[in-house]
Amino acid sequence: MDFSIREANLDDCKDIARMIMELAEYVKLAEHVKVTQKDLEQDGFSSNPLFHGIIAEVPEQHKTKEGHTKIGYALYFYAYSSWSGRAIYMEDLYVMPEFRGKGVGKALISKVAQLGLAAGSHQLNFTVLDWNKPSVDFYLSQGCFDITATMGYHCMRCEGEALKHLAQL
Amino acid sequence: MDFSIREANLDDCKDIARMIMELAEYVKLAEHVKVTQKDLEQDGFSSNPLFHGIIAEVPEQHKTKEGHTKIGYALYFYAYSSWSGRAIYMEDLYVMPEFRGKGVGKALISKVAQLGLAAGSHQLNFTVLDWNKPSVDFYLSQGCFDITATMGYHCMRCEGEALKHLAQL
Repeated sequence: MDFSIREANLDDCKDIARMIMELAEYVKLAEHVKVTQKDLEQDGFSSNPLFHGIIAEVPEQHKTKEGHTKIGYALYFYAYSSWSGRAIYMEDLYVMPEFRGKGVGKALISKVAQLGLAAGSHQLNFTVLDWNKPSVDFYLSQGCFDITATMGYHCMRCEGEALKHLAQL
Repeated sequence: MDFSIREANLDDCKDIARMIMELAEYVKLAEHVKVTQKDLEQDGFSSNPLFHGIIAEVPEQHKTKEGHTKIGYALYFYAYSSWSGRAIYMEDLYVMPEFRGKGVGKALISKVAQLGLAAGSHQLNFTVLDWNKPSVDFYLSQGCFDITATMGYHCMRCEGEALKHLAQL
């Protein structure tokens, strides 16, 4: 299939916001999405961006029935490992359902890896929901390791009132 | 016990490097540590720092038998959630064994939460090894959630030759 992969810009935020919601609906957690198109514009494309994006795009003749040509995305930011130094954290990787199985996801994660290595990162980290077997299998087939399954790493989170309480101890 | 908590500076890197190794030895993964004192100085205390640190310190009269007064640390960096926006990621939290159970860890994570909230973060994320029950119990008692156990999030990683291969797809 004909598609292209490129770094995201300000004009992509509308489609990124749409696809963030599609991904959240896919994992049945849409009520958690608070980020808006405007937040993405401010947070990702100011002079000091908090994240970076990659867009997968198809030519006009392959657009969806709703008229979308931007059909996948990845978001990432720079992280740091106290053991191996600079790292890259991939926050999201998404391909619209009708374009899956055509190499788009592979091209997106490959681009994230390229940009990470070019910036001196030694590690790519991300999370996946364990019941999302197609995604887990995809990542394992690309040479990624499930360090929760193999080493026992668990993801921990504090937010909302609990975070405010923690700050007041 | 008398101790103080403050933001880390360049002069703390020697002790941070020492305690990174102590923590890695505690979790039986010391062979993974590649980061040196010099890396920490460059990566954390240049004009564009990749991480930030917090130090726990005791007065001279409580120094360890090896002469250390810096007895705990936390490292964190800013992250981004595509659902809730700016977030903080705590890479490490460590207190030397002889100073545990005295509120030092609680004071360190509280300071990370304070700084994160002050910078507009809505979420604090980190990982813990599931066999490290004292740490898991400590975090749960502070209002953190194990989102691997409750929601099925698994940590994935790609590094070394696999990362180079991924970038060349």
